[in-house]
Amino acid sequence: MNKLKTYIFEKIRDDNDGSLISKIFDSLLVALIIVNIVTVIADTFNVPAPVGEFFYLIEVVSVVIFSIEYILRVWTSDLIRPKLAPWKARLRYVFSFMALIDLIAILPFYIPFLIPVDLRVLRALRIIRLLRIFKISRYTTALSTIGAVFVLKRAQLMSSVFVVALLMIISSVIMYNVENSAQPDTFSNAFSAMWWAVATLTTVGYGDIYPITVAGKIISAIIALLGIGLVAVPTGIISAGFIEQMDENKQHDEKCFCPYCGHNLEN
Amino acid sequence: MNKLKTYIFEKIRDDNDGSLISKIFDSLLVALIIVNIVTVIADTFNVPAPVGEFFYLIEVVSVVIFSIEYILRVWTSDLIRPKLAPWKARLRYVFSFMALIDLIAILPFYIPFLIPVDLRVLRALRIIRLLRIFKISRYTTALSTIGAVFVLKRAQLMSSVFVVALLMIISSVIMYNVENSAQPDTFSNAFSAMWWAVATLTTVGYGDIYPITVAGKIISAIIALLGIGLVAVPTGIISAGFIEQMDENKQHDEKCFCPYCGHNLEN
Amino acid sequence: MNKLKTYIFEKIRDDNDGSLISKIFDSLLVALIIVNIVTVIADTFNVPAPVGEFFYLIEVVSVVIFSIEYILRVWTSDLIRPKLAPWKARLRYVFSFMALIDLIAILPFYIPFLIPVDLRVLRALRIIRLLRIFKISRYTTALSTIGAVFVLKRAQLMSSVFVVALLMIISSVIMYNVENSAQPDTFSNAFSAMWWAVATLTTVGYGDIYPITVAGKIISAIIALLGIGLVAVPTGIISAGFIEQMDENKQHDEKCFCPYCGHNLEN
Amino acid sequence: MNKLKTYIFEKIRDDNDGSLISKIFDSLLVALIIVNIVTVIADTFNVPAPVGEFFYLIEVVSVVIFSIEYILRVWTSDLIRPKLAPWKARLRYVFSFMALIDLIAILPFYIPFLIPVDLRVLRALRIIRLLRIFKISRYTTALSTIGAVFVLKRAQLMSSVFVVALLMIISSVIMYNVENSAQPDTFSNAFSAMWWAVATLTTVGYGDIYPITVAGKIISAIIALLGIGLVAVPTGIISAGFIEQMDENKQHDEKCFCPYCGHNLEN
Repeated sequence: MNKLKTYIFEKIRDDNDGSLISKIFDSLLVALIIVNIVTVIADTFNVPAPVGEFFYLIEVVSVVIFSIEYILRVWTSDLIRPKLAPWKARLRYVFSFMALIDLIAILPFYIPFLIPVDLRVLRALRIIRLLRIFKISRYTTALSTIGAVFVLKRAQLMSSVFVVALLMIISSVIMYNVENSAQPDTFSNAFSAMWWAVATLTTVGYGDIYPITVAGKIISAIIALLGIGLVAVPTGIISAGFIEQMDENKQHDEKCFCPYCGHNLEN
Repeated sequence: MNKLKTYIFEKIRDDNDGSLISKIFDSLLVALIIVNIVTVIADTFNVPAPVGEFFYLIEVVSVVIFSIEYILRVWTSDLIRPKLAPWKARLRYVFSFMALIDLIAILPFYIPFLIPVDLRVLRALRIIRLLRIFKISRYTTALSTIGAVFVLKRAQLMSSVFVVALLMIISSVIMYNVENSAQPDTFSNAFSAMWWAVATLTTVGYGDIYPITVAGKIISAIIALLGIGLVAVPTGIISAGFIEQMDENKQHDEKCFCPYCGHNLEN
Repeated sequence: MNKLKTYIFEKIRDDNDGSLISKIFDSLLVALIIVNIVTVIADTFNVPAPVGEFFYLIEVVSVVIFSIEYILRVWTSDLIRPKLAPWKARLRYVFSFMALIDLIAILPFYIPFLIPVDLRVLRALRIIRLLRIFKISRYTTALSTIGAVFVLKRAQLMSSVFVVALLMIISSVIMYNVENSAQPDTFSNAFSAMWWAVATLTTVGYGDIYPITVAGKIISAIIALLGIGLVAVPTGIISAGFIEQMDENKQHDEKCFCPYCGHNLEN
Repeated sequence: MNKLKTYIFEKIRDDNDGSLISKIFDSLLVALIIVNIVTVIADTFNVPAPVGEFFYLIEVVSVVIFSIEYILRVWTSDLIRPKLAPWKARLRYVFSFMALIDLIAILPFYIPFLIPVDLRVLRALRIIRLLRIFKISRYTTALSTIGAVFVLKRAQLMSSVFVVALLMIISSVIMYNVENSAQPDTFSNAFSAMWWAVATLTTVGYGDIYPITVAGKIISAIIALLGIGLVAVPTGIISAGFIEQMDENKQHDEKCFCPYCGHNLEN
């Protein structure tokens, strides 16, 4: 039994051990996740009944496989922390980020069988299936490399978010007061004005809401120009982050000794 | 008396002394500022009379608290510069940036009691309450970290603002002359054309004003492409600023010795 | 014969040998490519019949010249890899990227003579002529300098494309569910919602599709603000790439000696 | 006479010699340039006749002053290159960039007195007055600091312009072929499609032209996402430029000697 457990643990873990079984297992799960995402998207089209039934079949098969995967992961999770009591190790694993994603991504399927839910809740539950997309991050380092830069610069990025929030609140309240009398329906309250502020500061500019008074246009121009600064700040922060990361990688690669006399050139 | 003053001074100052009272005082003020911002925003909705009265109550309580805070700050401000005469130290404090914000943020409340004002002035006075949002910067370093980069690079950023202004003036006058005959209502004067120039250079593009003639489209295309450069310049400047800041922080961490005599080169 | 072959090989190759013939050959080909691009663009206008016939004449002449060029390049290509058997060397050349471009750019002209094609296919075949624009990259280093940075940072750029794809899928499915009941015609399925997600995340914002519900606007605001981060990440990566490239070029210029023994550390 | 010439030369030159006269002269010219720009902008509004006459008066006074300034600059320009014959030195100055701007900015005023011109030409001549704005660059270093980075990176920036041109041509021809049958009036030829390509690649997105077919939307999405890369490349280049400039300035400032033993730490 213990041998089987260790075997499953090794095959199922994220770090590919290079064996064929482990590779097949990973590929199948990635394929299943992609199929799931495709059906979630396809579900938004008016699909004929037989296709809908086929989608439901896929859903049932997926949930069964993901459930087995989840149970196996929890069962073998005591091997991650061998020094802890098995139930403690498992409890820790269950409350880890990826395990929670795994659970929440399958749970909505079971809910309608346990408690009666109305259609709107059912619809919301189906969206939760989208969380399965994050399961794919187990098999790629894409999110982690970019995520590292965001973590490194989180304090500065938070600061820029705070500045954006300040700018948005101030500009939307001013804009509401300036434009409300000219366009009472469009700039009906600070929320509308905030919607305008988002569209302007991010330079999306859908064109559903914009100032028509001279004062409003002048204020809007100033805010739009500040919007450029808004893009510049996080870009600058993230650039600095990528450059810092690059410098660190380079320092690790470089030889720090003079090849002629053997002196350490570092300090 | 003096002991009480020193006590208040220590609790009220921005640099948290770690005591529970100081923490509670700070948290309460931040909460009050947030409540104030929320009511300013909520005020723009058609609130029923009782809610409006409740908002007025909040306003009265806020002004009372902020007024007491202001008086205490001014009273204890002679302790900041102990070498100056108290009235000189206080005068200096009163004209400091943050103290002026504090004063202007509460003053509008008192004005209608002192002199009769009409409704439009009253409305403008209410917007000034928004300045209270800057009081929050006492309790966060967010603005200062980003602000430092802007100060460091202010000369170059000013240059890019100057270039933008040049580009906007030139392109708007040209565009007015090109498009005015085809769209006399939209491109009615250089101000309209400048509004177009802002929307184009910042890439907001609301869609309320755009060229329809072939010459206008060609000029617009050139200006829109220059608009990319417009974003690139401040972004480049700010990136360089963040990287410079990062390098400086790093240099302070590194141990640096002269490779010839072994002396520490830091101090 | 062999002498003639070597002579043509030297004149026709991309690396200009400085002779007048080679320069004339290069200039003529660049001019011909530009003429071709101009006719492809001019073809989209309603040109009168005689002009259309003139364009066809240009096309025939171009294809003849490009065909001769292609044949000469293939014929002389065995001189690139003199150690291989001539047919092997030629086969390798034929399947090289630039040779494939050369072939595909002329092939569509011959197809209608070989097999009967309907009008729609004919139209598509004419677009393929656009590939001739890439022939121009033989005579410029523009694409290669920028391309080098993209190759250097391909892993990180791929990661950011993956993150964008994730964000687009998630936001479009959520947005479809939020807006579909309010705007069944505009947000008719996940594809429409994805079109909205592209317009928002890239900050293009045509204005043909945007949320009108409160929930939709809040979600849209969050996604638009994330869109700024979206621009910031590749910009940061590419900035780091250009700086890395710059540093490498600089290191080659600098003289670098070991401060302990004076040895040159470069080689 | 020669003494007067040297005196004027010293006062009129761009490098302020610190004397009061030179300062007044500079301030007056900057003020006059600003007044000129304001009248050019104000001219686009429907100004009543008396104001128009006043503007004409300003124009006459400005041209007289700028003409005198031009003559004085040319007259004293032989002092810049004392080794050359006076007429050679003056000829060189006349064909320098700033002198040409000075001349072209006043010339249009005299043309209607010399040869009869119709109204349209007159209008175009009035726009040329805008060139006077560049005279202001004599009194600011704003343009030169940013210009230096563009000159430093001109090769790479040219490359990115070339790539943009390629992308625009290819995407507009493809888009014309895809959308023309669905929207024959909007995507009427490759020029319209190129206008769309500019609006999309620069992310301006006015909303006057956008794809409606599924194929068009998919292609548009790909091009819009490439548009992000389009912003990223010049931003990355310019960032690298500003950082390079910063590094160079820093190296000049740093002391390159060990303060304890006097060893040069540079190489």
